[in-house]
Amino acid sequence: MSGFVADVRKIFFSFLAVLMISVPVMGQQAIFTVEGQVSPQVNEDRSVTFRIHAPKAVKVEVRGDFLSSGKGGWGSAELTEGESGVWSWTSAPLESELYSYVFMVDGMQMLDPSNVFLMRDVRSLMNIFIVPGEKGDLYSVKDVRHGTVSKVWYDSPSLGMSRRMTVYTPAGYEDSGSRRYPVLYLLHGMGGDEDAWMTLGRATQILDNLIAVGKAEPMIVVMPNGNAALPSAPGEGPDGLYQPITRPEKSMEGSYETSFMEIVDYVDGHYRTVRKAEGRAVAGLSMGGFHSFHISKQYPGTFGYVGLFSATVPRKGGGDGVYSDFDRKIARQFSDGVELYYIAIGKDDFLYDENVWLRQYMDSHGYPYEYHESEGGHTWRNWRVYLSDFLQKLF
Amino acid sequence: MSGFVADVRKIFFSFLAVLMISVPVMGQQAIFTVEGQVSPQVNEDRSVTFRIHAPKAVKVEVRGDFLSSGKGGWGSAELTEGESGVWSWTSAPLESELYSYVFMVDGMQMLDPSNVFLMRDVRSLMNIFIVPGEKGDLYSVKDVRHGTVSKVWYDSPSLGMSRRMTVYTPAGYEDSGSRRYPVLYLLHGMGGDEDAWMTLGRATQILDNLIAVGKAEPMIVVMPNGNAALPSAPGEGPDGLYQPITRPEKSMEGSYETSFMEIVDYVDGHYRTVRKAEGRAVAGLSMGGFHSFHISKQYPGTFGYVGLFSATVPRKGGGDGVYSDFDRKIARQFSDGVELYYIAIGKDDFLYDENVWLRQYMDSHGYPYEYHESEGGHTWRNWRVYLSDFLQKLF
Repeated sequence: MSGFVADVRKIFFSFLAVLMISVPVMGQQAIFTVEGQVSPQVNEDRSVTFRIHAPKAVKVEVRGDFLSSGKGGWGSAELTEGESGVWSWTSAPLESELYSYVFMVDGMQMLDPSNVFLMRDVRSLMNIFIVPGEKGDLYSVKDVRHGTVSKVWYDSPSLGMSRRMTVYTPAGYEDSGSRRYPVLYLLHGMGGDEDAWMTLGRATQILDNLIAVGKAEPMIVVMPNGNAALPSAPGEGPDGLYQPITRPEKSMEGSYETSFMEIVDYVDGHYRTVRKAEGRAVAGLSMGGFHSFHISKQYPGTFGYVGLFSATVPRKGGGDGVYSDFDRKIARQFSDGVELYYIAIGKDDFLYDENVWLRQYMDSHGYPYEYHESEGGHTWRNWRVYLSDFLQKLF
Repeated sequence: MSGFVADVRKIFFSFLAVLMISVPVMGQQAIFTVEGQVSPQVNEDRSVTFRIHAPKAVKVEVRGDFLSSGKGGWGSAELTEGESGVWSWTSAPLESELYSYVFMVDGMQMLDPSNVFLMRDVRSLMNIFIVPGEKGDLYSVKDVRHGTVSKVWYDSPSLGMSRRMTVYTPAGYEDSGSRRYPVLYLLHGMGGDEDAWMTLGRATQILDNLIAVGKAEPMIVVMPNGNAALPSAPGEGPDGLYQPITRPEKSMEGSYETSFMEIVDYVDGHYRTVRKAEGRAVAGLSMGGFHSFHISKQYPGTFGYVGLFSATVPRKGGGDGVYSDFDRKIARQFSDGVELYYIAIGKDDFLYDENVWLRQYMDSHGYPYEYHESEGGHTWRNWRVYLSDFLQKLF
């Protein structure tokens, strides 16, 4: 290292050393904090050790989706106090997966102060960790070529606002000249937004990894905001830093589905897309499955592939606008031809019965579909698997 | 609302109602949690009320950058326990600003469970809130046209890896035909990454808002990762969910500065840029100011505008490679012509003396520069102001 750079580093790091004396440091010039614990620590045998410094606590628990209480729910385990007020607990070896957890300190829920990796699910923040292996690797950033993820605003005249969406373009898109790409429109559930599939759903990582090994076609993936009353995810729009709403207005009353071709037109107008049904898919989870169900039959000849993941589905026909002429629109959809109609749900999902009804409806009319039934319920753990499976069947 | 949709909503919301009985709910199918408190609450008079449910706590404090302890540091205030274990405290009216805070519950630092809005600064997570007004509005998403923010990976042959960067393209970029745009390369500090300016620096909002009112030229802003040993921000690269490093290797030893034209070439090759010095600026904070200092003199005729925000600067010439021939390179830089050389620092910044030296050096050689001295120290609060000021002087 050259002399003057060494000098600069010395000055700078001397300053850092001062900052690092107290834990955590949050003074005026303290841009660095130090946490002494390693937590969570994923061990060689795939067990996981949790640690937290809580010298005054009487009871410390970890709650997580890896601590099953019955049918895949969140359970808890008590940490044991060790030296210097550091509590710890080590799990049994875990299956490869992306897991979520929080700490409970004397009954108060808090995040792990040693782990900066979080996910937000509507109003809940949770720490995450990944146990490597099959699924964990699929959900991790690997040393492969990466797509570009963009936050894009489009104008929606019918909803009267500019709206934010997430667009994934696959690795190589920028350097592939006039090549056109198929498009998957991937829709979130109730309380979600245009960020949900990229954070909770790990869609970026799944897409990068499946495309890299040739298991999925290079495709554009468009993730709009399905709440017709909202322009964007909480905090990303002109309404400021409001608390996320679990039941936004105008989520399942037709406005969004009616406006959907504004999104398709924007995408076709700004990206090199395959502009026919064989090059378009629409899929979504829960409410997004409901949206996909209606959107796919509302616009004939537009979407060749449909994916309903734990979908909310109507039990009977009727309604206005996009919901009208239920039977006739589905009949036309299948008469025009559907490349793939994919239905997936978990055995314990609260929407299971609605999906039984849907399958019976499809069967009774002879509409072909592919059905995937998994363990578990209405969870992102299932939706990541459904997405990973669905992507390999597209285009 | 049509009949069948009403049915679906009824089923769905009945299920939600069950979920909402317990607080917070984190069961298997609990995709929604409920927090009873509103916190923080920004009041009409710009005071702010903090609340937290902590029935077993003995002492609850809020710590934040709005509670000045001396020269702008973080102070604390004690909350008072009210009914049902809800603690609260209301600040004095605050100046318009983006503020950060955490709670201390019986000495344990924790985030506000009622506020999902966070920022990460190296290893620290902090809640944020905005007090509206001049600065607060500038840092907020307003009802204006928005640029696109993309996470892009470029190949760096010299560093031997694919690397992630953030690219802002201004509103209208996609629809402006062959129009070319100037580019600001905006660099982060030690321990930061390609996300820092967009999160802590509110660069997206500042750019959108200044461009919307004509105070800044529409420009492309490129925010690379300045840690030559790392491909990306923590958790966004192949190294997985590791804890952020305050002192990454190869941050200030020349590799990054030497590789920098790979970034410029990528940007010029993939965006409609103005490919001359009058259309390029490089600016950065702290370590990023150090990088900007060296990069701007290393590549003659490349950067017409230079911004050093609380920069680390070398006190004497010498060194190898990009650091060599200090005097000669600066002489050439100013002989070629510099549109703007902008130096900004706070009176309490620990790098103040180095910047005094820099100004003396510039003065002694007759190199023109613009100097902005502010209150306060080495803080994002200052860097947001410097950026907002600098942007209005560009192109």
